[in-house]
This record gives sequence, structure tokens and C-alpha cells, in this order.
Amino acid sequence: MTDTPPTYTSAQVRALIDRHRTVRRYRPDPLPQEHLDTLLYAAQRAPTDATAQMYSFIRLTDPAVRAQVAELTANPHLASAPESFVVCMDVHRLALLLEHSGYTPGHFPGVAVHFGVGDAVLAGQSMLLAAELLGYQGCWIGGVLTHLDQLVELLALPEGVLPFAGLTIGLPDEHPAQRPRVQRKLVLHENRYREPELHELDEALRRMAPITARGDWAQTLARYFAVGGSMEQREQVLQRVLSRQQLSAHSQPESVG
Amino acid sequence: MTDTPPTYTSAQVRALIDRHRTVRRYRPDPLPQEHLDTLLYAAQRAPTDATAQMYSFIRLTDPAVRAQVAELTANPHLASAPESFVVCMDVHRLALLLEHSGYTPGHFPGVAVHFGVGDAVLAGQSMLLAAELLGYQGCWIGGVLTHLDQLVELLALPEGVLPFAGLTIGLPDEHPAQRPRVQRKLVLHENRYREPELHELDEALRRMAPITARGDWAQTLARYFAVGGSMEQREQVLQRVLSRQQLSAHSQPESVG
Repeated sequence: MTDTPPTYTSAQVRALIDRHRTVRRYRPDPLPQEHLDTLLYAAQRAPTDATAQMYSFIRLTDPAVRAQVAELTANPHLASAPESFVVCMDVHRLALLLEHSGYTPGHFPGVAVHFGVGDAVLAGQSMLLAAELLGYQGCWIGGVLTHLDQLVELLALPEGVLPFAGLTIGLPDEHPAQRPRVQRKLVLHENRYREPELHELDEALRRMAPITARGDWAQTLARYFAVGGSMEQREQVLQRVLSRQQLSAHSQPESVG
Repeated sequence: MTDTPPTYTSAQVRALIDRHRTVRRYRPDPLPQEHLDTLLYAAQRAPTDATAQMYSFIRLTDPAVRAQVAELTANPHLASAPESFVVCMDVHRLALLLEHSGYTPGHFPGVAVHFGVGDAVLAGQSMLLAAELLGYQGCWIGGVLTHLDQLVELLALPEGVLPFAGLTIGLPDEHPAQRPRVQRKLVLHENRYREPELHELDEALRRMAPITARGDWAQTLARYFAVGGSMEQREQVLQRVLSRQQLSAHSQPESVG
């Protein structure tokens, strides 16, 4: 404990946490190399399952590639942000390391997605938090799933690699209000899962209402998650790409390398 | 920008990042309520896909439940740590919110795992980072997959809910060295995926060697990820539980609520 920096108070930690906003409009200032280095350092220092580091970042610097990714994901800030990444799970490098050392990689597509997505998010979120401490803001972008097959093609992702999300970072040029969350008792259970009461669902809907201009959170959720919503469309693309990338339980086992 | 706290320098951010160690032995001191509140605040403030907050934490406080989870995951610190959680993806609450509002939840099992695991990791890693800032350490525990079916039973997890990992937190009673990582050029690509050269794989194996007592990283990876390794065993359990929790592409769509 002697060589660690001083600890923070709860108030200081909350102030750091409260820096977070989701920002999609950035000032054009590029990141100094030193800051970019710090972000990538933070990404790599994140925890990882079984020491394996099952992720890859594709940093987008070519204006043509940026424009295409922005188009495929319907997120124009991927083209304009000072820094843009596609954060991927990656068990391809792991397979290469095993084969290069004389081992045969196992077949565990579901576990690969489980821990691979985990590692990708750990690295990406560590990077985003470091960015926020340096004064930047960012945005995770789920829209990579919309045209996932074309994205995999464009970025030349080998089998075993799957985009989790996009991530943009820069100095904010908009200053949105902090967004609400559901009440803690809905996400925190003790020893076993507790079903929410109907009046608690009502309260959650009330609390989250300000998240949309129309004040109707359920309608927003439905647009994504109800029958006919965008997630059902994404599901078809995702299943196709999981198969293609040898990450589906129903794809044939073969060498990922 | 006027009401945000001062930004940090790269050196300060690296010092914060470098606090991270994976710790499995804790001093017995319980967390003050104020610190626990701050951790849970940090978890809930994490980014979330499409505003949906698709995660649940099961906090383990009952000694009998703690002992069983420790046993099922082969991680004794889940029983002894000051704070122990099972961090889950959760699209069950989302389905309840939609149904309560008159919508029919869609069928998107693969996307649910993708963004549900993402949300769970975002919340859990934000909590762990807040803990590290307060002077604690923690450990993510992938062993929840080993006997996942019994764990789901024990915690009474409804359809749509899946443990991602365990997470313990407390004051460290061991002070391990910082662990190595592969070289940056292997995880960072520019505009398209770059295949590593064989000499780069050799360098990665050299860099990572100190992570095991025997100095053989490939052997460690093989024990988990090669043919006959633990991930292949976990795969079978995971696929069974994904089906049971209605999170498999090949499970029948039905109401999650």
C-alpha cells in the first residue's frame, strides 16, 4: 500500500463519475499523442479473462473508411470525431498464439462471445473513463450491428473477430444534461432475483421519462426492443455474421487460424 | 464546461489506472455504507445501450448462499470477501417494462446477449473502478460458467437473465505485482485488421511469460482454451443455460415476462 497514490473520497469519486455524458458532437481539436497514448494504455491495463486479452481495436483514421463506417452505422460522428474506433471481441489472436505454440484451439463459440465481448467492453470502458478524466467525452455506438456483415468485410475481420460497438472520443461541442436511471432497487438484488412490483415499473417509467423529448420511455424502448423493432432486424444480421465468423454454436468447428 | 471538476494530467490518469491489481485475498473490514452507495452509484451511471440498463447485480450477503456460490465457481473469496456480487445481463426487466406498457417484446436472443453482456460489464467495471479510487481492490470471476445451471437455479434467475461473472471487492490483503500485457500493436489496428507476424507472436509470449510461475503463457492459455481445456467444458453448460433462459437463437420465442 506504500506506493499507491492517495485514495479519493466518495464525493470526489462521484464528481468523477458525474463527468460522464454521452456526446456525439465534438470540437475538431485532435488529441495530442500523449493523450492518445494514455487512452490506449488505460485500455490495455483493463482486467481480462484468463489473461487472454480477447479484443482488438480498429482505429479509424482513413477518411474514406470513416465515411463508410459512419454510413453503415448511421452515426455521422464516426466520420467527424477526433478519435473513432470499432471495438471488437477477438479470439483469432488467441488461436494463432495457441497454434504457434503447438496446441489446437478448442471449440467454444458461446464462451468466446461471452468473455470476448466482456474483454472488449472492459478495455473500451477503461479507455473511455481515462478520456473523461482527461477532459474528453465519448459515445458507445451499438449501430455497428445494423450492417454488420458489410462492416466485417470493410475492416477485413478474420474468423473469431466480431465488432462489439463503435466508440468516438473528443472534446465535447455539446453539453447535454445528465440522463436519468431506473431506481437502484430494480438493478440490485440480494441473494436471489427479486421480481419487480408493478408500481415499481410505473416508477421506473416515470423516472426515465425525461430521457426522451416526448417523455415516453416505453415508446423509445419499443422502437428498439418490441416485436418489429430494430433489434429483431439486427438479430438476423448478427446470427449470419456469428456463423461466418465461426462464433455460432451451430457453425462447424474448424481452425480459426 | 464551467461546472465540471478540473481535468487530470496523463501522469495522474496513469497513476489511477496503475492502481488496478487483481486481488483474491481481502482484509475482513466491511465497506462503510457510504462507500457501498458510491460503488452502486458508479455502476448505475455507466453508459448503457439504448437507455435500457440490461443488467442486474445479485449482491451476496447470506453466508449460506455465499458458500454455495464460492463452491460452484471454485472461488473461495466469493464467500470471504467484504462484498461479493454476481453481475448478470438482464433483458427480463426490459420485457416486463414493455409488456406493462402494452408492447410485445421482440425475439432477439443473440442481440440480447451482445448488449446485455455489454451493459453488465459497463456497470460492473464502473463499480470496480470506483472501488479502486476509494482504495479497494477487486476481482472479476469467470468461474460462474463452470456450474452455470446450478447457479441460475440458486439465484432464482428468470428467463432473460444470465450471469456474466462474479465480482469481489474489499481492502487488499495481498499485493501482487502488476501483470504484463501483449504489445500494443497486436491489439491496435488501423482502418483494417492486421495479421500479426510470427515474430510478434513470439514477442507476445515472451512479454506474457512472467504471468505464470513456470514462465509459459501458452501452457496457461492451453489449459483454458485448447482442445480439451476448461472452456470446452463450459461451452456445453453455457449452451444448455442459454436455451433454458430463452437466450439461444435456437430456443423458441415466447414471452420472457
